[in-house]
Amino acid sequence: MKRREFLKAAGLGAGASTIAMPAIAQSAPTINWRLQSAYPPSLDTLYGACKVFSKAVAEATDNKFNIQVFAAGEIVPVQSIVDGVQNATVEMGQTGSYFYIGKDPAFAFGTGLPFGPNTRQQHAWFYHAGGNDLLNEFYATYKLYHLPFGGTGTQMGGWFRKELKSKADLVGLKMRLGGLSGTVLQRLGLVPTQIAPGDIYTSLERGTIDAAEFVGPYDDEKLGLAKIAPYYYFPGFWEGAVSLSLFTNLDKWNELPPSYKSLLTTAASYAATDMLAKYDANNAAALRRLVANGAQLRAFPQDILQESYRAATALYAEIGEKSPTFKKILDHQMAFRNQVYQWAQISDFSYDSLMLNAIRQQW
Amino acid sequence: MKRREFLKAAGLGAGASTIAMPAIAQSAPTINWRLQSAYPPSLDTLYGACKVFSKAVAEATDNKFNIQVFAAGEIVPVQSIVDGVQNATVEMGQTGSYFYIGKDPAFAFGTGLPFGPNTRQQHAWFYHAGGNDLLNEFYATYKLYHLPFGGTGTQMGGWFRKELKSKADLVGLKMRLGGLSGTVLQRLGLVPTQIAPGDIYTSLERGTIDAAEFVGPYDDEKLGLAKIAPYYYFPGFWEGAVSLSLFTNLDKWNELPPSYKSLLTTAASYAATDMLAKYDANNAAALRRLVANGAQLRAFPQDILQESYRAATALYAEIGEKSPTFKKILDHQMAFRNQVYQWAQISDFSYDSLMLNAIRQQW
Repeated sequence: MKRREFLKAAGLGAGASTIAMPAIAQSAPTINWRLQSAYPPSLDTLYGACKVFSKAVAEATDNKFNIQVFAAGEIVPVQSIVDGVQNATVEMGQTGSYFYIGKDPAFAFGTGLPFGPNTRQQHAWFYHAGGNDLLNEFYATYKLYHLPFGGTGTQMGGWFRKELKSKADLVGLKMRLGGLSGTVLQRLGLVPTQIAPGDIYTSLERGTIDAAEFVGPYDDEKLGLAKIAPYYYFPGFWEGAVSLSLFTNLDKWNELPPSYKSLLTTAASYAATDMLAKYDANNAAALRRLVANGAQLRAFPQDILQESYRAATALYAEIGEKSPTFKKILDHQMAFRNQVYQWAQISDFSYDSLMLNAIRQQW
Repeated sequence: MKRREFLKAAGLGAGASTIAMPAIAQSAPTINWRLQSAYPPSLDTLYGACKVFSKAVAEATDNKFNIQVFAAGEIVPVQSIVDGVQNATVEMGQTGSYFYIGKDPAFAFGTGLPFGPNTRQQHAWFYHAGGNDLLNEFYATYKLYHLPFGGTGTQMGGWFRKELKSKADLVGLKMRLGGLSGTVLQRLGLVPTQIAPGDIYTSLERGTIDAAEFVGPYDDEKLGLAKIAPYYYFPGFWEGAVSLSLFTNLDKWNELPPSYKSLLTTAASYAATDMLAKYDANNAAALRRLVANGAQLRAFPQDILQESYRAATALYAEIGEKSPTFKKILDHQMAFRNQVYQWAQISDFSYDSLMLNAIRQQW
């Protein structure tokens, strides 16, 4: 800080007593914000990203920018986080954007659509194909500013009490599954139901539901479902890439000095990358433990994948007819997905194929 | 800044004139550092990461921490960046760590070994499996502090004047290829040669070499090799995941206040993630243009992959017998790789398989 600037900031300059400086106009003001997470501390990867983010911001500013993290339900209810940020009850919220498709189907893209791009492709779309700018045009109508906030990688398709032989086995099957995924599978005859994570175990045990999806091995292990619904299906095609969202109230965002806007952007990316790395490092060991404890891995039958893909494509077209915003973002993302998968096929997918052969066959 | 702290910093406090405050002991001192890149600005993804990093640090500190980026060769020669950082000619350097395996083979791990973990797995190993801590134990013996600094994803296997039908076609083939990869393929009869990027075109045109590898479509396009060595092979199995390294002189690192250490860590991760996203977003379009301009995509014959894998495994064992450091890091990383690939197989790889089927077959 130059001396002149300091004098102003400290209120010591000539005539300073008559100048009302808004605190926020300082380059490094002291700010206390609140960040409401949609997750409990027990989900240490999801909730943990908020702590990683908050710590990075506090450290870099010598605690001048203090973002206090609140666990699920502490200030704003889990299902109202977007509203809480919109009306500035909290300055920031972490959630899956897709929980809010009831407001507008375009909320789905912040998280990811069934059969969307994979995790790396989604991130490339957000940051180097204009995706996040498109999303922020939309989110601005809700007074929200959006930063991608980490991913889980491809999730599991969940726990089933009985094996699935073909798409016929989905008819009448009651499954914990929400959002667009629920609507897609409803078209194959499945009955999607909403159940809080804490009630999944007893609902499956009593047969109130036949199946339930949650996240992946590391988080799923905490629910202990292998004994009561042992068939553990993959891939979670409706969550091939799941991104979390960090929402900031748009007015609060705009009030920040440039240094803090930059730092929040940098720190959100850091926390996001850290979350994915943590999942990638921990899911493998958790999967081994689950299998040792009775989980039986199964691939979804091909006709379920194919029919679901067709149902999803038809559903997106229908939504797009009613919502130009949804259609605009959908067309942009799917064109990108189709192009980048051509490159992935000969690069990372080809390398992964090679490595899986080498490891499995013990070359 | 509290008034008392300000007074100290500005040298205005009681007795301040007698107190010699080391600049570095301030919480947000003004610092000017130099970062030497191994790449020219024309490689805007590799060199660009330095600019993204430097900008993020400058913005978050209101230009108090200014890291000036120097293009390849401006201060320290490209092949001496590690030395330049070690002896503090520059505070920071960006390079591929594996260019320095002549000093110690353990320098290979900062970049990635042939047949190592894929890009996401490598990052998970760095940050959530203790990998980067292991590397920093080693790098400390060279007075270096290491932060992973972005990746290219799986690279291409390069440009060949003639098609490869089997491993027999590698015998006597002169190829631009360095480091451990060169040694691996040398065992199959290939003749690795070192050629500067600017000389690749003429060397291939004149037949001085038969093949050359560089990076991937986005960077390779700038060399214009499709007309003279049209067979474009995949995957680059010796560079399944390539990570760049950001080295800081260890003494300089240790002198930084905690706020700056934290910010550099955060900003390096941000720049790293941004680099990968930029490659992922741009490689696909570049690949299309290359194919339109005559590049002929070819998969490496299976026997080349298999023999190379065996040669690499044997080579690593031999190096490990002489170098306990290499063996320690190798064993740690390969155990991790084998475990995480089991999870990748049913998650992201399974999802990618599904999506490639859906897109190719136009479900």
